[in-house]
Amino acid sequence: MTHPREFTVDQRYALKVAAGNLGREFDGVFNSATIERFLTSSYDQFASGATIAQFLPLLAERFARQRLHALARVENRVNDGRPVVLFLCVHNAGRSQMAMGFFRHLAGDRAIAWSGGSEPGTEVNPAAVASMAEVGIDIRSEFPKPWTDEVVRAADVVVSMGCGDACPIFPGKRYEEWTLEDPDGLDVDAVRPIREEVERRVRALLAELGIPV
Amino acid sequence: MTHPREFTVDQRYALKVAAGNLGREFDGVFNSATIERFLTSSYDQFASGATIAQFLPLLAERFARQRLHALARVENRVNDGRPVVLFLCVHNAGRSQMAMGFFRHLAGDRAIAWSGGSEPGTEVNPAAVASMAEVGIDIRSEFPKPWTDEVVRAADVVVSMGCGDACPIFPGKRYEEWTLEDPDGLDVDAVRPIREEVERRVRALLAELGIPV
Repeated sequence: MTHPREFTVDQRYALKVAAGNLGREFDGVFNSATIERFLTSSYDQFASGATIAQFLPLLAERFARQRLHALARVENRVNDGRPVVLFLCVHNAGRSQMAMGFFRHLAGDRAIAWSGGSEPGTEVNPAAVASMAEVGIDIRSEFPKPWTDEVVRAADVVVSMGCGDACPIFPGKRYEEWTLEDPDGLDVDAVRPIREEVERRVRALLAELGIPV
Repeated sequence: MTHPREFTVDQRYALKVAAGNLGREFDGVFNSATIERFLTSSYDQFASGATIAQFLPLLAERFARQRLHALARVENRVNDGRPVVLFLCVHNAGRSQMAMGFFRHLAGDRAIAWSGGSEPGTEVNPAAVASMAEVGIDIRSEFPKPWTDEVVRAADVVVSMGCGDACPIFPGKRYEEWTLEDPDGLDVDAVRPIREEVERRVRALLAELGIPV
């Protein structure tokens, strides 16, 4: 860790546990220096924003885990043939979280879905959470986050929902632009039709990817 | 389902999906009539309280799942030798959720932990959630719930944290009474020492159960 001064005793303990968890998960894939580097930079990512201090170690661990999985794919250390879809929107709080929720729910372990935002918010939109709960999908554990280079490079399909010019373009990928209303500030009743449109598009994408629902 | 009038189209869909999920998970263990009965009674349990309507199908599915796992143990349909610990407090919002979080985090899949409350609240205490996040444990997906007959009967150890006379007593079980301050209404700073005491007791319990951490 490069920022010992910023850490409380609890945070230091949590980050040590996180480094241990990730070390075991990526044993034989990445060494501890790589894991610490990703954990530290993931921590910095959230520490510089409005994230509640207590959640920093938890989010850093989860974000580092996702990025390490992505890096393992980019470097061909993992090649299981499963398609990777990256859902992007502005805040990674509504549309992209709902899309990822449907995709994971419907695809199970046959494909991989990640999400990110160009200006990540501090929490997943409560109306989006409630509208997904209504159809039995739990996205309460998700959190808004940016995308990173390795995450975009590991994706086979990038679905952009309103991040416009801020969306990353890498050659050799399939891109989709979904035009959907932003649920920011809307109540559950207003989010419901957006959720239905997201579901319709996710089902169509899964069909195109050859993943029967 | 016995209450079609109360269900929106979305809820009916979600409960149908839930019944399908549980049917696959308990295939060969319980028939669809048993699963529907548990799903319906679990739904009723939350519908009669202050639970936000959108979350009812999600919580009903998860509660029914836990109860069916418990029933499978009570009826000796499952006997994997793993100890089951049930953590109980008043609201199932703070102490018992923190204890279950530490237990699952430290025991992994070597033991099973459930929790319940005598007067379940409507959400897990945010200060408890934050104080657990601080040590890298995510309890955001948990929800306050009561205990049920089969859940208590399936437990090998019942740990009671302040539900007093309301706590269930069944013969042939090991009981522990943990005296801990109620985090209800406290901020993260005040919850931290309670969390530390919970961790200490969970580690001692794991040692007694022969589960090295």
